[in-house]
Amino acid sequence: MEYKFAQGVASLKPSVIREILKSSGNTIPLAAGNPAPDAFPVDDIRKIVGEVLENEPILALQYGISEGYGPLIKKLTELAKTRYGVGTEADGLIVVSGAQQVMSLTSQCFINSGDCVLCEEPSFIGALNCFRSYGARLVGVPVDSDGIRIDALEEKLKTEKNVKFIYTIPNFQNPSGVTMSLEKRKAVYDLAVKYGVMVLEDNPYGDLRVAGEDVPAIKSFDEAGAVIYSGSFSKIVAPGIRVGFVLAPAEVIAKLTVAKQTQDVHTPLISQLIVYKWLTECDFEGHINKIREIYSRKLDLLCDCVDKELGDFLTYNRPEGGLFVWAKLNDGIDMLDFCRKASAAGVSVVPGNAFLADTEEKCQYIRMNFSTPTDEGIVKGVKILGEVARSL
Amino acid sequence: MEYKFAQGVASLKPSVIREILKSSGNTIPLAAGNPAPDAFPVDDIRKIVGEVLENEPILALQYGISEGYGPLIKKLTELAKTRYGVGTEADGLIVVSGAQQVMSLTSQCFINSGDCVLCEEPSFIGALNCFRSYGARLVGVPVDSDGIRIDALEEKLKTEKNVKFIYTIPNFQNPSGVTMSLEKRKAVYDLAVKYGVMVLEDNPYGDLRVAGEDVPAIKSFDEAGAVIYSGSFSKIVAPGIRVGFVLAPAEVIAKLTVAKQTQDVHTPLISQLIVYKWLTECDFEGHINKIREIYSRKLDLLCDCVDKELGDFLTYNRPEGGLFVWAKLNDGIDMLDFCRKASAAGVSVVPGNAFLADTEEKCQYIRMNFSTPTDEGIVKGVKILGEVARSL
Repeated sequence: MEYKFAQGVASLKPSVIREILKSSGNTIPLAAGNPAPDAFPVDDIRKIVGEVLENEPILALQYGISEGYGPLIKKLTELAKTRYGVGTEADGLIVVSGAQQVMSLTSQCFINSGDCVLCEEPSFIGALNCFRSYGARLVGVPVDSDGIRIDALEEKLKTEKNVKFIYTIPNFQNPSGVTMSLEKRKAVYDLAVKYGVMVLEDNPYGDLRVAGEDVPAIKSFDEAGAVIYSGSFSKIVAPGIRVGFVLAPAEVIAKLTVAKQTQDVHTPLISQLIVYKWLTECDFEGHINKIREIYSRKLDLLCDCVDKELGDFLTYNRPEGGLFVWAKLNDGIDMLDFCRKASAAGVSVVPGNAFLADTEEKCQYIRMNFSTPTDEGIVKGVKILGEVARSL
Repeated sequence: MEYKFAQGVASLKPSVIREILKSSGNTIPLAAGNPAPDAFPVDDIRKIVGEVLENEPILALQYGISEGYGPLIKKLTELAKTRYGVGTEADGLIVVSGAQQVMSLTSQCFINSGDCVLCEEPSFIGALNCFRSYGARLVGVPVDSDGIRIDALEEKLKTEKNVKFIYTIPNFQNPSGVTMSLEKRKAVYDLAVKYGVMVLEDNPYGDLRVAGEDVPAIKSFDEAGAVIYSGSFSKIVAPGIRVGFVLAPAEVIAKLTVAKQTQDVHTPLISQLIVYKWLTECDFEGHINKIREIYSRKLDLLCDCVDKELGDFLTYNRPEGGLFVWAKLNDGIDMLDFCRKASAAGVSVVPGNAFLADTEEKCQYIRMNFSTPTDEGIVKGVKILGEVARSL
């Protein structure tokens, strides 16, 4: 049979990163984005799940409502307000199956085929592919060292038709590592309101700050109901349980909830109960401090190794948090060739063009991750990258 | 801000059933579709999860690949072949976050706004809303006591433009309870191939047979690569863990996998490991027999009560399995009025029009569920329905 796929999906390729990781085998995974396993609160989770299945097994195993487990919604609403400074009476919050689902629900609710999504360039491939799958035209806006270029953003808002939202990761952006300045956050918000376009603010890494000061979320300025805020527990609890949340104007949340019904009915109750009980019964702050120490040490290690082994071949800005270092290979080095030779030598890094709105564009960047590999892997992996660079 | 929702979502309402259930409180839930809590293998799950978090915590908590946990895919592929008689070398299989996600992934991969989906009428509201949310035009095909009307189906295939797939629940259809005959299954398959249209075969209830003989799945005839087969563990293990699977031609599975990456990256590993270990280490057949006994008894109880209390007011065909009884109120009874008065009297049933392609159409049917209420709830609930009917 000849299959007639939908327009947005027909040309879509699997994520380059996930494909690299699937075939990685013995490769040192500098391409991945997995949190460090020693950052998972395994003992807490074991205890919580044991208690839940002992005391409330039917709650954990029966259908739940699409919005999520009531007490968790209440807790997250509090946390959003007190810890992240976001959310008003005009907003609602629902639990989702990982923050990726926020991208998916927002796409399903807003994108008609051919609509435009403005995204930072470079940006997170999982989000870009999601928007593409709904037939969105992706238009990239360059990112400087303090965030998206405001002049370029306004230019696109003026000229592009049917812009549905601006997608941004303001903290330790994936892949660039850039944190958007307060001034630019306010400017993005003001432009969104001025042009009647939503902002989709994705904040999976906000708690992983290892240097500098927290900057208020774009959602914290939101009086006009223009911002959809996405939160994740993948990096601070565990990604395998797939729990995130979305905070947005009530009218938008109502639509996202209907979309969630159509996607997976609800997020697994066991996963929701793990997060709920972890937030209410365990040492949240202590755990965040612990994982910040882990990531601070691993970031230092990667940067030290890169400076030593690759200093002659690339430049980068040191991020203040997150999981990635985004580095520009010197002119004259063929980026794709470098990535291929690295892979052949046993180290995976992600070719930067994967993060562009148009992946065919020329790009000199690579993304390196420091959370997934062991410390030994980082040392050995970057050493091999140095050898590859010298061999070119 | 004025929100510009996507076409398919703009007019979409939340599921009538989920809204009824959310506000149900003390109501006797004959409207629900929850499996009976005593049908959950609670002790098995408790033991499995304890062992997994003791022995393989990082496997359970780290990111996994979008296709699903490898050993589970292998096990499900075997099970599909040996138990359900479906799947060939030309097919692939991935794990999904409950069978609802099969509807969602299939919609995302196939439906352009304005495309047509042919569905049995009546049919499962969760699937219909999903197709609607992607902008599908739903066209209903009537269901007789032995399944979809083949003449009407061919008529629609001839006349409707851009038909993407035929959606069918061949076993104990929700809501009608009807099981499609072998002859009709073959005819549906032949028509699909003849007109180059896919079949989406949804089989959440297949193991819940309490009378009669199993009928081969439509997918079992599939030599042309025309059938997407959806399986679920919500009714035989537990719905709250959200695990199902989809078996389809390899080219289709590749697209569904990409779509799954964009929706939720992967199904939670704990949920996948529960199903994997339950299938490999626990007494599958024994458990199925146990839950069949539970549902057989509860179906008998509901039918006995309905015959006694409502025999003068409605007619129905006794289903051979599943979770629902679909009953036609006698002419002269106002169906919506009956449902409203039942709700006011403390019993929820679902108004039949909720299951139609066009929910504004006139309908004399109600759907009653026997798995969610307790035995006492069934007796008391139907008694109240009898009083309501007599009062009209």
